[in-house]
Amino acid sequence: MNQDYIKPDAWSIIEEGFEKDRVKSSESLFSIGNGAMGQRANFEEGYSGPTFQGSYIAGVYYPDKTRVGWWKNGYPEYFAKVLNAPNWIGIEVEINGEKLDLARCIEVRKFRRELNMKEGWYHRSFETVLQNGTEVRVDARRFLSLETDELGVIKYEVTPLNKDARVIFRPYVDAGITNEDANWDEKFWEPLETRHSLREAFVVARTFKTHFKVATFMHNTLFRDGKELPVKPLTTQAGDDKICLAYEVAVSRGEKAELQKLGGYTVSMNHAEDKLIAAAQEVIRKAAEKGYETLLDAQKKAWAGIWEMADITIQGDVKAQQGIRFNIFQLNQTYLGKDARLNIGPKGFTGEKYGGSTYWDTEAYCLPFYMSTKNQQVARNLLAYRYNQLDKAIENAEKLGFTGGAALYPMVTMNGEECHNEWEITFEEIHRNGAIAFAIYNYYRFTGDYSYIPEKGLEVLIGIARFWKQRATYSAAKNKYVILGVTGPNEYENNVNNNWYTNYIARWCLEYSAEQVRKVETEYASDYARIKEKTGVKDTEIRQWEEVAGAMYFPYSETHGVYLQQDGFLDKELIRVSDLNGSQRPLNQKWSWDRILRSPYIKQADVLQGFYFFEDHFTREELEKHFDFYEPFTVHESSLSPCVHSIQAALLGRMEQAYEFYLRTSRLDLDDYNKEVKEGCHITSMAGTWMSIVEGFGGMRVKDDVLHFSPKIPEQWEAYSFKINFRGQVLKINVKVSGTEFTLEGETALTVIVNGKQVLVKPGNLVAV
Amino acid sequence: MNQDYIKPDAWSIIEEGFEKDRVKSSESLFSIGNGAMGQRANFEEGYSGPTFQGSYIAGVYYPDKTRVGWWKNGYPEYFAKVLNAPNWIGIEVEINGEKLDLARCIEVRKFRRELNMKEGWYHRSFETVLQNGTEVRVDARRFLSLETDELGVIKYEVTPLNKDARVIFRPYVDAGITNEDANWDEKFWEPLETRHSLREAFVVARTFKTHFKVATFMHNTLFRDGKELPVKPLTTQAGDDKICLAYEVAVSRGEKAELQKLGGYTVSMNHAEDKLIAAAQEVIRKAAEKGYETLLDAQKKAWAGIWEMADITIQGDVKAQQGIRFNIFQLNQTYLGKDARLNIGPKGFTGEKYGGSTYWDTEAYCLPFYMSTKNQQVARNLLAYRYNQLDKAIENAEKLGFTGGAALYPMVTMNGEECHNEWEITFEEIHRNGAIAFAIYNYYRFTGDYSYIPEKGLEVLIGIARFWKQRATYSAAKNKYVILGVTGPNEYENNVNNNWYTNYIARWCLEYSAEQVRKVETEYASDYARIKEKTGVKDTEIRQWEEVAGAMYFPYSETHGVYLQQDGFLDKELIRVSDLNGSQRPLNQKWSWDRILRSPYIKQADVLQGFYFFEDHFTREELEKHFDFYEPFTVHESSLSPCVHSIQAALLGRMEQAYEFYLRTSRLDLDDYNKEVKEGCHITSMAGTWMSIVEGFGGMRVKDDVLHFSPKIPEQWEAYSFKINFRGQVLKINVKVSGTEFTLEGETALTVIVNGKQVLVKPGNLVAV
Repeated sequence: MNQDYIKPDAWSIIEEGFEKDRVKSSESLFSIGNGAMGQRANFEEGYSGPTFQGSYIAGVYYPDKTRVGWWKNGYPEYFAKVLNAPNWIGIEVEINGEKLDLARCIEVRKFRRELNMKEGWYHRSFETVLQNGTEVRVDARRFLSLETDELGVIKYEVTPLNKDARVIFRPYVDAGITNEDANWDEKFWEPLETRHSLREAFVVARTFKTHFKVATFMHNTLFRDGKELPVKPLTTQAGDDKICLAYEVAVSRGEKAELQKLGGYTVSMNHAEDKLIAAAQEVIRKAAEKGYETLLDAQKKAWAGIWEMADITIQGDVKAQQGIRFNIFQLNQTYLGKDARLNIGPKGFTGEKYGGSTYWDTEAYCLPFYMSTKNQQVARNLLAYRYNQLDKAIENAEKLGFTGGAALYPMVTMNGEECHNEWEITFEEIHRNGAIAFAIYNYYRFTGDYSYIPEKGLEVLIGIARFWKQRATYSAAKNKYVILGVTGPNEYENNVNNNWYTNYIARWCLEYSAEQVRKVETEYASDYARIKEKTGVKDTEIRQWEEVAGAMYFPYSETHGVYLQQDGFLDKELIRVSDLNGSQRPLNQKWSWDRILRSPYIKQADVLQGFYFFEDHFTREELEKHFDFYEPFTVHESSLSPCVHSIQAALLGRMEQAYEFYLRTSRLDLDDYNKEVKEGCHITSMAGTWMSIVEGFGGMRVKDDVLHFSPKIPEQWEAYSFKINFRGQVLKINVKVSGTEFTLEGETALTVIVNGKQVLVKPGNLVAV
Repeated sequence: MNQDYIKPDAWSIIEEGFEKDRVKSSESLFSIGNGAMGQRANFEEGYSGPTFQGSYIAGVYYPDKTRVGWWKNGYPEYFAKVLNAPNWIGIEVEINGEKLDLARCIEVRKFRRELNMKEGWYHRSFETVLQNGTEVRVDARRFLSLETDELGVIKYEVTPLNKDARVIFRPYVDAGITNEDANWDEKFWEPLETRHSLREAFVVARTFKTHFKVATFMHNTLFRDGKELPVKPLTTQAGDDKICLAYEVAVSRGEKAELQKLGGYTVSMNHAEDKLIAAAQEVIRKAAEKGYETLLDAQKKAWAGIWEMADITIQGDVKAQQGIRFNIFQLNQTYLGKDARLNIGPKGFTGEKYGGSTYWDTEAYCLPFYMSTKNQQVARNLLAYRYNQLDKAIENAEKLGFTGGAALYPMVTMNGEECHNEWEITFEEIHRNGAIAFAIYNYYRFTGDYSYIPEKGLEVLIGIARFWKQRATYSAAKNKYVILGVTGPNEYENNVNNNWYTNYIARWCLEYSAEQVRKVETEYASDYARIKEKTGVKDTEIRQWEEVAGAMYFPYSETHGVYLQQDGFLDKELIRVSDLNGSQRPLNQKWSWDRILRSPYIKQADVLQGFYFFEDHFTREELEKHFDFYEPFTVHESSLSPCVHSIQAALLGRMEQAYEFYLRTSRLDLDDYNKEVKEGCHITSMAGTWMSIVEGFGGMRVKDDVLHFSPKIPEQWEAYSFKINFRGQVLKINVKVSGTEFTLEGETALTVIVNGKQVLVKPGNLVAV
């Protein structure tokens, strides 16, 4: 553990005391978001010390011109990246003629941040002594409305403690911002129009190239000790891309000067381009009518609704409780599933890193969380996101030489186009296509809703099957189909042949797609006619898929009785991680890339990822053998690694090991294990933490339309509980040391299987097992 | 062939007619150099059309901060690159008030360039009609002195054709230049001092970081119709980094206004830092004393000396003659072997591309040329370059995790540090280490001078053997040593296991190094004591080298009876290049990188490179089998590919194929096959062209201290001749359709073997075979 300044608390993230070198980390940890926008916990009043400024609007991105050392044919020319959006939170504060700036104050006392996850707000407070001798207390509260997702609310209070004060608030909206990670130091925003009145200001700006048009707005109200004041703005500073209003509030010692600022964005994705200011005015009008307290109440209610469904409780370990809630909170801040154009960025609204927003993380790690904790439309939206980008996936495959409607989904994307440019990943980490197909199967397995497949999913499956069919090569030497030159989930191997996981999921895709084509043909004739017309899918083609699947090659070691991660794996020097000198870790910081590549060390589950997805294809003994062969070479240097291992260790009854893996994910960011939280939080791996509890400790599975559980509890805990939204009913599972209790909110009794035995749970009745 | 505007001529490169879109290409082709400096054929008077400005000083480089898409651990932070040097050739010309600029003239007539390779000068002439109606003829002659390699000479003449003219010459020196390929658009030069007088000007500038200090100088003399004029400078423009003098010459119609400009550089590599201007003044004094004609005579004489030794004549094919001379000329312009700190940049003084100056090209391709056409000190200097950088090679290996004095030479270097950053090349194309060891052996084989090994070579061999010993991995599965994760000479495969060429040369290095340690120990006791003291080499260590060498694994196919390029090669779809649709070529422009990687296509000789180096380890039948297996998959998309194949085709008696390969190298730049000559010429592959004739058609080999030949002649030629400097005597070989003639310049009769039979060649006597 590298940092432990976050106070343990079941429902809040709390920091106490001001340390300049924690500012960037806390800016990440205290980020807020509402699925449509979000921002880092930057100080409203500005800060001249080290800070990483970031506001983001979901779906608003920029294709930055690619910059690489050596160009490889096929690289995307542009790299769509998360865009730093205009700033609406800024409020410069002048107190008795001095600008408030925590980097320059004489003293900062009682500095405290709280991110209240239960109610969805962020509060920062401190006392400070200015250079002019004025002592003040500041309280800044902020939340992004779930109810109206274009709206954010700030309540900023200044109370002079030792003398009267003339407080000037200078709230602003500013589109003159840049990205820290811009490749060519270009500006991404073009300012178009500004408008302002006594209380309000608007800056309309448009992104270059992508032409997203955004009105950033604010509305200000002033109070003295809770009593609203008339507004008399001082000098207004109006530039091309920034408007700053100014208001003075004179307060006596102990009196509160308060600015309430409503702000946010209206975006051309959701409004007519010429109506953005009008739409913003409407948002302001409604919000101003309600007022701060009403808006805050609605916020609490909305978050209560989310927690009602998604909460996991842990008794006996407050840090574990805080950790899992932080993960669930961040996932919900990032993506709420209302809009099929959006997806789950690896940093959410907490940083710029990793460029695009969508990785295979969504299908492999996030989908189960959203399926279990939201209604099924949310999961459907995640699937539809890929369906809507199928044309681009086909284009992407064409760029790489595939034909006839073969689809290769990008490794990283925003709008369906590839936005990654390491050849060994971009072109070769093709197993992502498998996860996208698997998610379609997984959705049906969990929800029982087959309709998605004839409606949309089958077209995606056809594109993916076509890709695998072409990507496999017939090896005359082996008389088998091989898949050459790939990077598996373990990115510590590049350009290998016959990565078992890739070959396995490729075969599965071919078989599953063939099956689904036949099923839709038989059972959904009109859908099939449309799909056939659109894709030209043919029976001869299906038979080719089956032929390739039937003759797929899998590297296997007779000596060890395990499938090999790839051809030649046994040529490596097989020294276990536990026998490595600790000074060599983490490998990705200590070893040069070539050394990592020729070592046996595994970054994240690879063969075992296949055993996770296709658990029911293997016996427990087979899992154990593979787990015992591969885990000792695994360094878990990806945030996505420990969860899969935790689930499998739990399945194998190794609770201590399972718990150890669990710990590595649940407080990854809060404790800043990798010393990088200042760049943002690891949003997608947070879903893995949720899986570790529900699928790992809880043993939740769906088999043949029935929920299964095999609950286990870590020694360190007294009890834990979670809920599963299963086909329209909500099942609560409360695991105690003494046994497990099930309760059902719904209308129909539900049979579940607990440790292999049927249990009938009736609505409203608690069943203990 | 993409361009054919160069006029065929046995001794000159000639362009006639002015075409704006040829300017950049011609700037490359007409580049001049003298081993110490050089520049592209930029117009002295400036040019406002598309141009690529470049002047270069050998050994003066800049470590540009690396810029990559995704950082890999181990990448060099800086990337040393060839530096665009201050401009001394510039002479702005004003004629009757109008600046001369070929991009803006009303008409350009009789434009002609000639690069006279025999005498080493460049002449550009044209007639033009200015916008002000003045018609002039311009003759600009330029050469870089071989005799005084800090000196360049320009003679610039303007003759008005239709009216009298007031000609103002504005010669300048300018350090305010940039690199086109700078990663961060930084300036690389810091101006320090300027000085000027009536005739002379100096700009002293220093490179940032590397602190090379350079005085760029000029000295001007004026003539009217050949008669020297007194100088009366007009306004001088003196800036921080540029000084421009101005002189007026009034001439009547038909009279010649002439500026003679001496210029060049004195560099802190060769002079005390505070004496650079003084040194420049001395260069100027001596040159001015001699005058233009004397300097030009010396130039002709110096080039005659080079040609006397290095010329290859071809009768019956003037374009082939021009091609081979262009190659020999460029090699000599680039590197003359006087200074062991210098090496042979892939673009010489003709462009910026490829950054560093030294690749394995030097050892594998260039060394044989310099051994045969210069005295052996030149080859020794090339070897010593690596010896002098041994410490850096050891550091480089340490960065990658090797220990105990193991040395890995960089893929690309300037000062011994790596300056390449593609992981699959930088970290994995390690066979370069083998070529460096092989060059030591090759030098001894050719010259018979063993002294280099105890003096310097053995330390290099020890470092290299230590590297291979550590880089090989013991595979328990194979009970053999394997070498994992490499890129062979065929860069269309990355991160492969057991590249046969790499394993083979690694084994050879281990064995050869062990042998040499034992030999030096026995025969050069005092050298051995010094080396042992310095390197700590131990007998146990030698035995380990031998153990690894003895158990090295080589992939082999029983079915095909050939060594496999790497593990798994036979899993590929083995479609021959001849069966590929032509529209797919060149692959590196048409296919994405992953597709190239999983294809069987070979960029340049890989297994066959091993058969080239170790020809005597294999039978002719084995060579034939491997040639017939691999060449059909070879796309020759490296300029270094055709020569090896040409030599082997000739050896196999396939003269038509050999000639076809020869054609692909000899006029690569003159005819601009790859449409990229504007970026500069392919200097190192030019040595391959030389090898194609001498080793290919001539069949020259050295075995057991004896020269062997098996002369063949392409059908298209009547005769060709070349010379070999063999151990202090010069043997001339003249191959005709009817037979071969040998003549010897030297003192001692020489026995050579021609087509297997001994032939005694006595000094002065022509022997016909």
